[in-house]
Amino acid sequence: MTVLVVGSVALDSVETPFGKADDVLGGSGTFFSASASHFGPVQLVGVVGSDYPTGKLQGLALRGVDLAGVEHTEGESFRWRGRYRHDLNSAETLETRLGVFSHFRPKIPEQFRRAPFVFLANIDPRLQLDVLRQVERPKLVACDTMNFWIESRRSDLLELLGHVDLITLNDAEARQLTEQANLVKAARWIMKRGPTHVVIKKGEHGAFMFTESSVFFAPAYPLEDVFDPTGAGDSFAGGFIGYLARAGQLDEEHMRRAVVYGSVMGSFAVERFSIERLLEIDQGDIRRRLSEFRRLVAFEEELDE
Amino acid sequence: MTVLVVGSVALDSVETPFGKADDVLGGSGTFFSASASHFGPVQLVGVVGSDYPTGKLQGLALRGVDLAGVEHTEGESFRWRGRYRHDLNSAETLETRLGVFSHFRPKIPEQFRRAPFVFLANIDPRLQLDVLRQVERPKLVACDTMNFWIESRRSDLLELLGHVDLITLNDAEARQLTEQANLVKAARWIMKRGPTHVVIKKGEHGAFMFTESSVFFAPAYPLEDVFDPTGAGDSFAGGFIGYLARAGQLDEEHMRRAVVYGSVMGSFAVERFSIERLLEIDQGDIRRRLSEFRRLVAFEEELDE
Repeated sequence: MTVLVVGSVALDSVETPFGKADDVLGGSGTFFSASASHFGPVQLVGVVGSDYPTGKLQGLALRGVDLAGVEHTEGESFRWRGRYRHDLNSAETLETRLGVFSHFRPKIPEQFRRAPFVFLANIDPRLQLDVLRQVERPKLVACDTMNFWIESRRSDLLELLGHVDLITLNDAEARQLTEQANLVKAARWIMKRGPTHVVIKKGEHGAFMFTESSVFFAPAYPLEDVFDPTGAGDSFAGGFIGYLARAGQLDEEHMRRAVVYGSVMGSFAVERFSIERLLEIDQGDIRRRLSEFRRLVAFEEELDE
Repeated sequence: MTVLVVGSVALDSVETPFGKADDVLGGSGTFFSASASHFGPVQLVGVVGSDYPTGKLQGLALRGVDLAGVEHTEGESFRWRGRYRHDLNSAETLETRLGVFSHFRPKIPEQFRRAPFVFLANIDPRLQLDVLRQVERPKLVACDTMNFWIESRRSDLLELLGHVDLITLNDAEARQLTEQANLVKAARWIMKRGPTHVVIKKGEHGAFMFTESSVFFAPAYPLEDVFDPTGAGDSFAGGFIGYLARAGQLDEEHMRRAVVYGSVMGSFAVERFSIERLLEIDQGDIRRRLSEFRRLVAFEEELDE
């Protein structure tokens, strides 16, 4: 089944302790698409400026990402410049230039409106709500958000919660949104407002998925070399939603496996700059890392002690 | 099989967002013993001053902890006073009074010297080495340490590494000791110097166990109410070593289960002040929480996709 994603398509300039990259493909829509494309067809909606190296998006097109929803507009593309020091868990933003993204009004092409899986990547909650008015009864709607919207668009975000099945956000954002220091309580607070599933991402410390009756945890894979953490969260979401769309089932068993596929894809994303590694891997790599995740947490209870 | 632990027996005064406790049982030896006693016999070596409310140690004695190695000395007991704010991950030490602990020279009673499992809790590495000279070929020696010793007793600590099978330390300590930001690399650095097993505790973010050929991860249990984190690490070690002593086996399967038992006991410790909760729980509670841990990380790979 197809996944529709609405998000940013940006140019990132990143500096890590291991190297530097300038004006490489970035943005939540880009990372999500590259990741989800390993599981099935993806439809991307976003906007780029007249300066965007559109040829570079061909890597996504070759992987089956339908770019018909990527609008080309007069002006500068969204650019983000950031740096990671030795603590790879937090980026220092050096510069954000929204460019054409600041006037982005997502227009969902006619042929995208019946996508059964919809991911509203981190954009203004008003736009996320607007996307939902354009699509037709998806099987699953998931969204992401960030501190900026939690602060500046709180009431829209709360309205959005009433219209999504699942939200992914990081631990700091969950605490900020709910004003609960405890993540179990934070998840419960969010579930009361709509979503049946709350996925709290903790970066290198893994991710929780809460439902009303269960909690699941998947660690981040202990990589020896994390090269560039940019896009890990969106790649996680791409693996998560991409897998669900492929499986077409939303029961607990598949939801749990989806979290692990999310972690698998996040773990690949951070091994290179931009979406490089995500374009390079194949089904065998994904299957092998899934097995490594299984082994990472595997233990048996005693039968009789 | 019996576990011998050498560590501190202290009086803690703790303030958390949820309450306050004064002069309650604390110390690494105390938490470890209370936790390990659920798995089998424990022998505790430590020191208390003339002001120690020794009657309160009867809770440990009733649980089968042999207190013959707890030396009573003229002077003040070791006292720690600390506070946790809303971030329960880090304690703020308000006062440390070493008292009789500053002259502690562990004397292992004759009948303790053949304990097959030895845990050297967080004390001066010179004393940890001294304990090893007094015991007879244990099946497993494990140690803990802390930032203070890493800085002030580095060469003794490195010597100690050559004599232990397993070390538990937290992520910050692992990084400080090895000067490696990456935990996989930090673990490898430590293993090169002796231990075959390195357990890196990350507080609310769980624990890794590294061996030369494997890595295992157990999350911390997502409790809705963490009451007082004091002693979680030593309770973890108590469950870990206690379980191994009960199982009497050190293969990968048992070592993994031991990490989870450690996490189980740590999760109980933080539910009340001091060792209160550890004295209250029974085998059924432990078994149930182990099952909850299993369920927390359980997922299946697909059979054919």
